[in-house]
Amino acid sequence: MKMHRSIVVVVSVLVLAATLNGQTKPRARDLGIPFDGTPGLRNAITDVAGVEVGHTTLVSGSGKLVAGKGPVRTGVTAIFPRGKESADQVFAAWFTLNGNGEMTGTTWVEESGFLEGPVMITNTHSVGVVRDAVIEWQMKKQGKTFQPWSLPVVAETWDGFLNDINGFHVKREHVFQALDAARAGAVAEGSVGGGTGMVVHQFKGGIGTSSRKLENRLGAYTVGVLVQANYGGRSQLTIAGVPVGREISDLMPERGKSDDGSIIVVVATDAPVLPHQLKRIAKRAALGIGKNGGIGTNGSGDIFIAFSTANPGAAGDSVVSLTMLPNDRINPLFAATVQATEEAIVNAMVAAQTMEGVNGSKVYGIPHDRLKAAMKKYNRLKE
Amino acid sequence: MKMHRSIVVVVSVLVLAATLNGQTKPRARDLGIPFDGTPGLRNAITDVAGVEVGHTTLVSGSGKLVAGKGPVRTGVTAIFPRGKESADQVFAAWFTLNGNGEMTGTTWVEESGFLEGPVMITNTHSVGVVRDAVIEWQMKKQGKTFQPWSLPVVAETWDGFLNDINGFHVKREHVFQALDAARAGAVAEGSVGGGTGMVVHQFKGGIGTSSRKLENRLGAYTVGVLVQANYGGRSQLTIAGVPVGREISDLMPERGKSDDGSIIVVVATDAPVLPHQLKRIAKRAALGIGKNGGIGTNGSGDIFIAFSTANPGAAGDSVVSLTMLPNDRINPLFAATVQATEEAIVNAMVAAQTMEGVNGSKVYGIPHDRLKAAMKKYNRLKE
Amino acid sequence: MKMHRSIVVVVSVLVLAATLNGQTKPRARDLGIPFDGTPGLRNAITDVAGVEVGHTTLVSGSGKLVAGKGPVRTGVTAIFPRGKESADQVFAAWFTLNGNGEMTGTTWVEESGFLEGPVMITNTHSVGVVRDAVIEWQMKKQGKTFQPWSLPVVAETWDGFLNDINGFHVKREHVFQALDAARAGAVAEGSVGGGTGMVVHQFKGGIGTSSRKLENRLGAYTVGVLVQANYGGRSQLTIAGVPVGREISDLMPERGKSDDGSIIVVVATDAPVLPHQLKRIAKRAALGIGKNGGIGTNGSGDIFIAFSTANPGAAGDSVVSLTMLPNDRINPLFAATVQATEEAIVNAMVAAQTMEGVNGSKVYGIPHDRLKAAMKKYNRLKE
Amino acid sequence: MKMHRSIVVVVSVLVLAATLNGQTKPRARDLGIPFDGTPGLRNAITDVAGVEVGHTTLVSGSGKLVAGKGPVRTGVTAIFPRGKESADQVFAAWFTLNGNGEMTGTTWVEESGFLEGPVMITNTHSVGVVRDAVIEWQMKKQGKTFQPWSLPVVAETWDGFLNDINGFHVKREHVFQALDAARAGAVAEGSVGGGTGMVVHQFKGGIGTSSRKLENRLGAYTVGVLVQANYGGRSQLTIAGVPVGREISDLMPERGKSDDGSIIVVVATDAPVLPHQLKRIAKRAALGIGKNGGIGTNGSGDIFIAFSTANPGAAGDSVVSLTMLPNDRINPLFAATVQATEEAIVNAMVAAQTMEGVNGSKVYGIPHDRLKAAMKKYNRLKE
Repeated sequence: MKMHRSIVVVVSVLVLAATLNGQTKPRARDLGIPFDGTPGLRNAITDVAGVEVGHTTLVSGSGKLVAGKGPVRTGVTAIFPRGKESADQVFAAWFTLNGNGEMTGTTWVEESGFLEGPVMITNTHSVGVVRDAVIEWQMKKQGKTFQPWSLPVVAETWDGFLNDINGFHVKREHVFQALDAARAGAVAEGSVGGGTGMVVHQFKGGIGTSSRKLENRLGAYTVGVLVQANYGGRSQLTIAGVPVGREISDLMPERGKSDDGSIIVVVATDAPVLPHQLKRIAKRAALGIGKNGGIGTNGSGDIFIAFSTANPGAAGDSVVSLTMLPNDRINPLFAATVQATEEAIVNAMVAAQTMEGVNGSKVYGIPHDRLKAAMKKYNRLKE
Repeated sequence: MKMHRSIVVVVSVLVLAATLNGQTKPRARDLGIPFDGTPGLRNAITDVAGVEVGHTTLVSGSGKLVAGKGPVRTGVTAIFPRGKESADQVFAAWFTLNGNGEMTGTTWVEESGFLEGPVMITNTHSVGVVRDAVIEWQMKKQGKTFQPWSLPVVAETWDGFLNDINGFHVKREHVFQALDAARAGAVAEGSVGGGTGMVVHQFKGGIGTSSRKLENRLGAYTVGVLVQANYGGRSQLTIAGVPVGREISDLMPERGKSDDGSIIVVVATDAPVLPHQLKRIAKRAALGIGKNGGIGTNGSGDIFIAFSTANPGAAGDSVVSLTMLPNDRINPLFAATVQATEEAIVNAMVAAQTMEGVNGSKVYGIPHDRLKAAMKKYNRLKE
Repeated sequence: MKMHRSIVVVVSVLVLAATLNGQTKPRARDLGIPFDGTPGLRNAITDVAGVEVGHTTLVSGSGKLVAGKGPVRTGVTAIFPRGKESADQVFAAWFTLNGNGEMTGTTWVEESGFLEGPVMITNTHSVGVVRDAVIEWQMKKQGKTFQPWSLPVVAETWDGFLNDINGFHVKREHVFQALDAARAGAVAEGSVGGGTGMVVHQFKGGIGTSSRKLENRLGAYTVGVLVQANYGGRSQLTIAGVPVGREISDLMPERGKSDDGSIIVVVATDAPVLPHQLKRIAKRAALGIGKNGGIGTNGSGDIFIAFSTANPGAAGDSVVSLTMLPNDRINPLFAATVQATEEAIVNAMVAAQTMEGVNGSKVYGIPHDRLKAAMKKYNRLKE
Repeated sequence: MKMHRSIVVVVSVLVLAATLNGQTKPRARDLGIPFDGTPGLRNAITDVAGVEVGHTTLVSGSGKLVAGKGPVRTGVTAIFPRGKESADQVFAAWFTLNGNGEMTGTTWVEESGFLEGPVMITNTHSVGVVRDAVIEWQMKKQGKTFQPWSLPVVAETWDGFLNDINGFHVKREHVFQALDAARAGAVAEGSVGGGTGMVVHQFKGGIGTSSRKLENRLGAYTVGVLVQANYGGRSQLTIAGVPVGREISDLMPERGKSDDGSIIVVVATDAPVLPHQLKRIAKRAALGIGKNGGIGTNGSGDIFIAFSTANPGAAGDSVVSLTMLPNDRINPLFAATVQATEEAIVNAMVAAQTMEGVNGSKVYGIPHDRLKAAMKKYNRLKE
């Protein structure tokens, strides 16, 4: 079998960024889809200063599934709030729309109000290896300053429709690669990193990102969102209010694929919000998913984490000084979170291309021309 | 001043039902707005067998606000899960999208898994009088079988833009009236009961209801929703995916009215779901609000309660037998909740008519013709 | 019947403080009960600067219960974080050990992180009148600066064993009195205010308070606790590790009294802790109750609220500066909360005296001599 | 160095059960410590029919710490609700007293109300390998009936004071061994399984277990508890109300050891309680810890999970029939949980013996004679 000889291809974020995100491929708003709000410079989570993203993408083999051999369609993504060189913690909080999923480390996030390291996203059955590998990486990186224990945040969605998920192909080396590859700047989208084998509204999905930049009078804060999108049925798919799922009801995944799945949402902001305010922000990610037609199905792990890069040094060992945004001024952050989540999901779909996986399964990329046609039919195309 | 002599008019649900809901006034889907899913017989929360609704509507006076005198634009609404003659408890759970509001009794709902009496909805500053009056009513109604204590569930939204809210016009007698008036059948919508003085997306709002009936293969369960809608800014208003708020940007409330507010959602079902499953259902109400453009603003009390009329006698004093819907079959209830919440809000808007209140404040009812025109413009009008 | 003619006696906190707490009556540690930690000056919640407490105590009638007539054994207690003249909000959070009870306003506390007014405690069936009266009082007190709506925090425990609870004897005037009576300084304990008719571990209970002052090296912070104690069975009663309930198994309430009930705990501190940290502190109150033998029975409403008087002006309308205690230094506050809760409960018992109530019901005050004897028997008496 | 050549010794539960628990070693109540309530046959979690426990204990090397080499003092423990041959799910819920720890899988437990596999306990830095290995084991065990994804429940406490925790010595084979070794019957306590290197109240700790059997009139239900105890400072240690920590203030850990740490509590019952009731039960574990002096310090991961073996087949795919214990009858389960948690912790201490670990660190087993003497001094020794 060909697959056995295939080499696992590790595609780093740098290469991907150059090819995929260097304006050579259109993103959702390039297609004329109307979104509310004003994005940041790159319309990416990395518009929040300090945020770095790294992917390891594992694609190899084709044809019949042989557990442990492949085909492999998976990976791991790392998001650092303050960059990979910083061990400074950020305020954080999390929320679950539907909890058929895993995000490790959240018990301590909830208790302490802090996220102490990167957020990792991978496939469901590789959470463990990623978690322990993060500890090992931190230990090496931080040396003697490494604190006695670590409770990494690792989330997942299920890629077993395309990927040999029970083959446990993500290894600690792949985790190190994603961590080391983390960079500011453009973020590769679609079938990359943890999102490699993912399916959203029964089109090819994966990683997507977006951002919003608030007006100066609202504080000029940035909200950035990164999603690993893997949820939803076709018929529910709505984009910018248009029933796209009904307009494109063909091109369904081949060889089965229920409408179950999951979505991980990471929300970053530089606004000075405290943990209890970040929980409020994380909760709004649900509304963005809802706008695209998600309802948080029973089989879905719709888990969100939000962090703020404001207040560096907040995790000091003596009484620290902080700043806090008043609750009365938080609405623009709520709106930005809803909008950027909605757009990040569509960005994931628009970037991802048709992929074949285990046992000849196949998931189609959403056809850009038909997506535009649907917008036009409902008078929503922005030209 | 005229107002001082005006008599507080108590309009019972029966009269309102006859005039407002007796098919003489169109509801949202009568206007051709396309909603997903199949409603029950009356497209109302009372499609769930046993549910009874009663309103007391207080409207009197006009002109200048004199605290304690009026003008009065308020009321109280009672929803009984198993009808007003039953003291049998129902499984229940609650969820908050944004907690700038009150729903008393939820601590015990959360702990026990039971809702022990009616759900009441009124204005923000009348929660107390309603709460204690419910106890008094229960005491009389149940006589010697009344348990030693009661923790009524009373929710609110703020009607101070139109109503003399600091005049405390809801009295215990009004509460008794709403409780006694509770009936199955048609439910009055718009400016009635607790919804009398409410404002939604800066149009006149109030009480709205809707339901969904699942196909037989999905269990033939009914989900009914009743909302007291009082939230949202105009520009965010989206109906069936159409940016209605931008299409009708005039007819804004006169004499101020921020986009703050609240929404209470009551979800009823006859599906045999347990408390932890009802919490999942309650959470989905948020997605229905989100579809209409709500984001759970800071000033909003977006609080939801869901109950199941299945499993009568569950609150027994010996080990009881129950039935439970498997989690794997809960998705249609999730979808139904999202859909019915979305439609109930629009029903509230469509039913409510222009109202003037304190100090000449005025809120416009959404004009039906322009709403239809907006649907048509975006190719969403269902004819 | 005598009762009918009896006058409701309103005993203000000032008088009570003079007679009860002016060192003429012993408190728990005066009896030689060993408690851990160092109390503040008054060993009261008012050791936290700014905190003011006011009680209205309603005692009248005796003999047969006639609903609406009496006998009356109830009241209301007000606790202001920054004194009754201040409308400045405090960071706050709440926690429930067992939720068979009510604490209104907690949804907004949870969402906003702020407690906006006083904490009120009364009987179960008077929560409503107290809630609305607080709004009325705030409106008058604050005049034009009163914000458009208020969501008061009102908690309760059930005094129906001694009190005509269905007579609704707490009136708005009594609420105003308690609010106006609030003072710094000594706090009356036992059968006063909201605690008037309460029963704890089947001895007479009610209001109790205690505090802890941390060493300078730990920040010199103060933690103050006030409880309204009305929970627990006799056999479980443990004081300072001694099985007091087994040592004094007689003197049980006459004419019935189950071991159900509730306890409200209010924790105040001047340590600069944020809302998510205050939730952690509130949670520790459960451990103090547990030490005295409480297990949070099904019929009990064991609800706790914690607030911090640090960070005045935190609820501003532009970005505010705050200070925060690091999590790594929070343990002494945890220990202080456990200790002060434990002691406050015992203080309530030691202060409360035998009381007769409706239909000849009678609850004994714990006999001080036998309590000391029990301590001695187990080698725990501190002389 | 000797350590390098040392062989990792895997001690199975069977051997340990024979030597440690075959009545040759005393348990806490054998020493005359008075505990409330009546234990089940073995005073172990396995008194709940169906529950099986397996340990893998890893002890090797001594002397200087060389990361990856040792010394090794760690392991892994598996608890199956219905035995390792069953894939039938159990109702479950979890609670956190202090969340400085990890218990994976809890998001789905919370959402679904079900625990789908075993509960695993290990050291902090081995959670990942254990998690993924459980999936692999389930896949092999269940073959074609294995569902597409698994979200294992894996908890931890930190053993880095005695163990080379950054050496990642727990391997997937060790996990398989613990899973395969799971048995009903006696449960090894002390320095075994996940508890091998643990420290409690600065004495040697680890695994402990206890149970309570309710009277027939209360339903004859059993509550079983298993703890991995690794928390607390010496001075706080209280046993049966006696300040043991002050009585035995010497024998402190050698070469440092803060009072931080964690405790995992697993509560099993055969009472027919639903998920929301199990959450209530899980919460009571905190009170058992509190009785022994725990306050849930900031550095502690005090995380509890409770499950019910009643209602087999509850996770069916059509509507299922269940039984439910009324809330009014839940108090004995609360009391049993508090009592069994309290006793399980003391059992862990009494069973564990002095251990030396990395870099000459040393933790003393609590001396039985001095523990008895302390009981006697405070008139609490049960003879």
